[in-house]
Amino acid sequence: MSISSRFAVGIHILTLLEVNKEGVNSSDFIAGSVNTNPALIRKIIGMLKQADLVKVRPGVAGAELAKELDEITLLDVYRAVNVVQDQALFGVHENPNPACPVGRHIQDTIGSLFTTAQKAMEKALGHVTIRDVVQDVLDKEQAQNTEG
Amino acid sequence: MSISSRFAVGIHILTLLEVNKEGVNSSDFIAGSVNTNPALIRKIIGMLKQADLVKVRPGVAGAELAKELDEITLLDVYRAVNVVQDQALFGVHENPNPACPVGRHIQDTIGSLFTTAQKAMEKALGHVTIRDVVQDVLDKEQAQNTEG
Repeated sequence: MSISSRFAVGIHILTLLEVNKEGVNSSDFIAGSVNTNPALIRKIIGMLKQADLVKVRPGVAGAELAKELDEITLLDVYRAVNVVQDQALFGVHENPNPACPVGRHIQDTIGSLFTTAQKAMEKALGHVTIRDVVQDVLDKEQAQNTEG
Repeated sequence: MSISSRFAVGIHILTLLEVNKEGVNSSDFIAGSVNTNPALIRKIIGMLKQADLVKVRPGVAGAELAKELDEITLLDVYRAVNVVQDQALFGVHENPNPACPVGRHIQDTIGSLFTTAQKAMEKALGHVTIRDVVQDVLDKEQAQNTEG
């Protein structure tokens, strides 16, 4: 599973933990909503737990949010499911030729430019919280029910 | 080769076409600087040509820039090597369960949030041109020569 899919599934899980907070959010139940297998859900919950975004109590089925809704940003989720910390969004190509002036310097040059672009993206993700996601999902649900 | 490596190689090629504009920039020559095989270079030059960033004359070895240095942004390069146009940086997970309120709406919600983050990243890439890259490479080269 790619990083980007893990990211979306991580957001889905956290949103579900809030919307269904009165119920038991077992990995089976969550897997039913995401439409995937429980083993994958457990893996991603493990990553979210590692990042202190969810709590899992030993011997008790179901996970719950470890922080307030508006204290969890999408950037937190992105970083939680990104196994390698500070992994670059864009790769710099490896081993350009040091005998060529361009090959000699291009990695440094591109690296810092990519970092700038990545920081812009991360800043945008840092401005959105799980509360915003939950609110949007509930608004959409209400709009649909009103239509019906 | 991943999109991100193609992106870095695309920037490398365009930079080299400027820095070595008095020479013949054949795919063999460029491959020597990037340190990869000429077939891959030809493939990426084909993408850059498709996006009107380079010119290739039939029967004449070597490519050249098709625009002014400061008219080519990193966003242009990113889009040129991204084979699928408007491909999403982050994937939304497929087929969440429509019987669950979260599953029913999460794709729309996440999709628009991801678009916002991607636009921030693209805006940052749009502010940097190949002229900036060339200048940085030349500055680094000069600093190195001064040290020596």
